[in-house]
Amino acid sequence: MKITVLTLFPEMYEGFLKTSIIHRILEKGLAEIRIVDIRDYSNDKHRHVDDTPYGGGAGMLMKVDVVHRALLDNISNDHVYTVLTAPGRRPLVQKDLERLSTLDELVIVCGHYEGIDRRFERYIDEKVSIGDYVLTGGELPSMVMIDGILRLLDEGISAESLKEESFNDGLLEYPQYTRPPEYNGDKVPEVLQNGNHKEIRRYNLKMSLKETLENRPELLEKRELNKEEKELLAEVVNEL
Amino acid sequence: MKITVLTLFPEMYEGFLKTSIIHRILEKGLAEIRIVDIRDYSNDKHRHVDDTPYGGGAGMLMKVDVVHRALLDNISNDHVYTVLTAPGRRPLVQKDLERLSTLDELVIVCGHYEGIDRRFERYIDEKVSIGDYVLTGGELPSMVMIDGILRLLDEGISAESLKEESFNDGLLEYPQYTRPPEYNGDKVPEVLQNGNHKEIRRYNLKMSLKETLENRPELLEKRELNKEEKELLAEVVNEL
Repeated sequence: MKITVLTLFPEMYEGFLKTSIIHRILEKGLAEIRIVDIRDYSNDKHRHVDDTPYGGGAGMLMKVDVVHRALLDNISNDHVYTVLTAPGRRPLVQKDLERLSTLDELVIVCGHYEGIDRRFERYIDEKVSIGDYVLTGGELPSMVMIDGILRLLDEGISAESLKEESFNDGLLEYPQYTRPPEYNGDKVPEVLQNGNHKEIRRYNLKMSLKETLENRPELLEKRELNKEEKELLAEVVNEL
Repeated sequence: MKITVLTLFPEMYEGFLKTSIIHRILEKGLAEIRIVDIRDYSNDKHRHVDDTPYGGGAGMLMKVDVVHRALLDNISNDHVYTVLTAPGRRPLVQKDLERLSTLDELVIVCGHYEGIDRRFERYIDEKVSIGDYVLTGGELPSMVMIDGILRLLDEGISAESLKEESFNDGLLEYPQYTRPPEYNGDKVPEVLQNGNHKEIRRYNLKMSLKETLENRPELLEKRELNKEEKELLAEVVNEL
């Protein structure tokens, strides 16, 4: 997969691209990431990329002509999918990342300052928000998207691991424990230490239902429970 | 405000802390950020920080003793507020950032791998998720939190600018435009160019209602509209 990021702050990606899992995935050649400086597409000798908004208002807007030139120069064909980071859309969810991870080529345009001249939006396929909060720019949102997409591409993350994690089957992940068996008086649950895989599976499923009920009860309403899950959820409720 | 981040990947923060608005805020002394390597608190000669989960399952878990030692060594008093990045909680919203921005001291612990031994959770005040998706670790979520908090602390972002933006009054931001007045056949709306501030305000409010209706209609249900807003929303609906 090829991902191109158009940004005013290319240096912000340095640490991200060099670190940990992302670095490993890039080394493996599973994806190629290019960071492009929008400022290189300014026609202005001072490399201006922004201007004051019509009608007044605080802050500066990124200019449509500059960002459009940057976009045109970085899409090699008609099949490239283009997204713009922008607050206010329905927030990104895991299913969006799964969809984006199947693309051959993705261009992410990062808004900054007060945003981009609205007329730019006709040139992109989708606006993406990572959550209902305001950030200084689209750089972190673009990294969040890339991180979430690349880990889905990575063979290093096993199918088993992906299957176990939060959201994957509509329930939150169950609590996990590692050594030591006792820490500050807190013990690892007996059942996890006894090696009975049937019991462990059932216990973990019950804890997953408990986690979901306690933290995101609305997820249980959205999901159909099978017979075993209903039994376990009843146990959870009785023990509250 | 003092923010400490406990992470296995301190190098990931380099670009972020050096860039743009965040850098300016730190230069101004409005906040102090310390990045602490959890690995420094391993007791193991190989600097191991993780181990396999009890009961089986894929991946590695961060050890409770190591992370707890790191936390204890980095909270100077009882008033420090501690958060742990973790998927599955109700996602962060702007009001959470506003609340966190009033703290004197915040410690953010970044989960990684499959997460942290559940027994660590009794030592933190709050679990924070930035959205309903899965990432490789808590580093980007911590940056998202810091970015969102610091911009609220920054006097450089005017009260007017904060007031205008998305979420602040329960409506999405209206579209904005800057020069040139025409680009590729797309013109800036007349009303924004005529200098009539009363008309501009009314037009922008209408567009804000339109944006919200088209993209996040549920926000309109949650918000009480005044007489002018009701009139404008009726106009929007009529023009659809």
